[in-house]
Amino acid sequence: MITAPAGFIAGATIAGIKPSGKPDMALVINQGPNFDAAAVFTRNRVVASPVKLSREAVASGQLQAVIYNSGNANACNGVQGDKDAAAMVAAVSERTAIPAADIAACSTGLIGEVLPMDKALAGIDDVAGNLGADKAHGHAAAEAIMTTDTVVKEATFSGTGWSIGAMGKGVGMMAPSLATMLVCLTTDAAASPQALQSALRKACDLTFNTLDVDGSTSTNDTVIIMASGASGVEPSQEELDAAVLAVCSDIADQLQADAEGVTKRVKITVEGTANDEQALNAARTLGRDNLFKCAMFGSDPNWGRVLAAVGMADADMDPDNISVFFNEQAVCLGSTGAPGARDVDLSGADIDVRVDLGTGGPGSAFVRTTDLSHDYVQINSAYSS
Amino acid sequence: MITAPAGFIAGATIAGIKPSGKPDMALVINQGPNFDAAAVFTRNRVVASPVKLSREAVASGQLQAVIYNSGNANACNGVQGDKDAAAMVAAVSERTAIPAADIAACSTGLIGEVLPMDKALAGIDDVAGNLGADKAHGHAAAEAIMTTDTVVKEATFSGTGWSIGAMGKGVGMMAPSLATMLVCLTTDAAASPQALQSALRKACDLTFNTLDVDGSTSTNDTVIIMASGASGVEPSQEELDAAVLAVCSDIADQLQADAEGVTKRVKITVEGTANDEQALNAARTLGRDNLFKCAMFGSDPNWGRVLAAVGMADADMDPDNISVFFNEQAVCLGSTGAPGARDVDLSGADIDVRVDLGTGGPGSAFVRTTDLSHDYVQINSAYSS
Repeated sequence: MITAPAGFIAGATIAGIKPSGKPDMALVINQGPNFDAAAVFTRNRVVASPVKLSREAVASGQLQAVIYNSGNANACNGVQGDKDAAAMVAAVSERTAIPAADIAACSTGLIGEVLPMDKALAGIDDVAGNLGADKAHGHAAAEAIMTTDTVVKEATFSGTGWSIGAMGKGVGMMAPSLATMLVCLTTDAAASPQALQSALRKACDLTFNTLDVDGSTSTNDTVIIMASGASGVEPSQEELDAAVLAVCSDIADQLQADAEGVTKRVKITVEGTANDEQALNAARTLGRDNLFKCAMFGSDPNWGRVLAAVGMADADMDPDNISVFFNEQAVCLGSTGAPGARDVDLSGADIDVRVDLGTGGPGSAFVRTTDLSHDYVQINSAYSS
Repeated sequence: MITAPAGFIAGATIAGIKPSGKPDMALVINQGPNFDAAAVFTRNRVVASPVKLSREAVASGQLQAVIYNSGNANACNGVQGDKDAAAMVAAVSERTAIPAADIAACSTGLIGEVLPMDKALAGIDDVAGNLGADKAHGHAAAEAIMTTDTVVKEATFSGTGWSIGAMGKGVGMMAPSLATMLVCLTTDAAASPQALQSALRKACDLTFNTLDVDGSTSTNDTVIIMASGASGVEPSQEELDAAVLAVCSDIADQLQADAEGVTKRVKITVEGTANDEQALNAARTLGRDNLFKCAMFGSDPNWGRVLAAVGMADADMDPDNISVFFNEQAVCLGSTGAPGARDVDLSGADIDVRVDLGTGGPGSAFVRTTDLSHDYVQINSAYSS
């Protein structure tokens, strides 16, 4: 709930960018007294115009507002896209008297469609005139950034005398599915841009960056945190880290649960390799393997696909000493089937997969992914048409 | 047709390894006078027992026979698997008087199930007593190596006074889908193991290695060529290269067309990057992107997903100067939508995608892939159960 911390107002409107007629614009404003901010953006080299704009805006360590639209990603629109993102920010600046340089923009939706600026500008007029610090206004903003999300995603963490609120959308993470991951965090803590950036980077690595629905990475992914300082409390870096992690974790759980077409939530842990980076490589390789993901959809304890997938990973391993555990039951030991392996019950919605690559090395990492279902194919084959 | 070239006999039987009761064992024998051979194996580090055995057998440059079974991959069965593969070869040796060291073995099917050796050995007895050089025997062998294949895959190339025959199975390539890719080539040309290996390696790089259905790589992939010299003709390396390429190309086309759940055959060409390797990286990244593959299934000219996918590739690019062509019609120029891009007709079964990464570099490469369909999910979620 982004309006939970003191110092923030928000609102939403139906600008008509989404053909469905659902809410599609939101504005979040930090009323201070501080305007410290930090952000993490997509690693994709093809980035949307609002990402370029927001990167520049947050470079100063200060933000006073973020304008959101769904229904159109404003990505791959060339110079026109850059102009349109700037025009959105200029319109917000005009209506709120906030300097344009302190306003970020986030868009999500179809790539390569020019923004309908008449609708966007009318929407900004509307949303700027309807802002509030109450629960309903915060919730409305979270609803307006949804695309194929089926539920609104919000989280709140309460510290001693201060709090963090968050809203998120998307069906993936920093390697998200078609719909961009956008997350906005607000806090009334006093915190420097450096403290915010450090907390956000660490939290993203442990939450959104471990979430990998289909290996695809959006052009628009953006996580922004703004700190108003309105509580008068300046938490220690450790307190801030823990709070940002808690909120990001909560939103990441909600993203995974609502991933496109998901019927299973799968946590993959890899250990027994040289270092954490190699363990992460192997976990990602498995998490992106369609044969493994289809087996999870079918509740099929087909551990052979796990070995076939990790065998291609960029990680040290002993090919004759790999072990696999499904829901902590051994299904493969020493690269050979364990007794009862085919009878493991994977019918539940949560599946835990642990792979030991058998080198005895200290590397360990996890990713969270989902199954590959009929609904995933359905949703993603009928998206733009 | 592996029995088309002079000097080869083959046969097949129903050993009962497949629960379906369909043919599941085949034997191919080179009767000489020459026994030169070469092979290419999976790049996976987790390899099946028959792959280990066949690597050793072909290391001498000589093979006289290959024993095939479907319905069981004999992979991840530990020491027992190695023993069973050796026992199969020993049984063939006993029945044919061919030295065991000159016999290769190929298995395909479920990983991690111990081979039912009583059935396998009885099957070898049966198939060894029913071999022939005619069309029916060659065809029966090609049928017996099928798993989820829906059609038999055979090819023949006729040179001047010599020929090459081939059979193949699988639904992928060196990065194949669940069912291993197995290919057997036979020729009555006289050719050294070095000439055969060179021709096979080059042909695989241009055919099976450009075919990428889902990025998964089997533990069992094996392509073997045997040369009997029975024609008395020794083609030049160029002639041999061209002939092996022609046959591999033909089989690769058949594999792609029969890939699991395929409704579209997609050829992806990437150019305009630093070198061919980077172009191949980008083509593979796109070919493995599920969002792109779902769009192809939906006949959806959603070029934004092409940019989002290649933006994550390990390749030099100019993110503001990427061009995309669907069926040679420009849909994105300078990283921005081209007029009429949404109206391109992708309803046909073959889709040609060309991406220029915009650096002006000379790199160019292609891969062939398929769409991601409901049937793919269906087949692969219900395989082992």
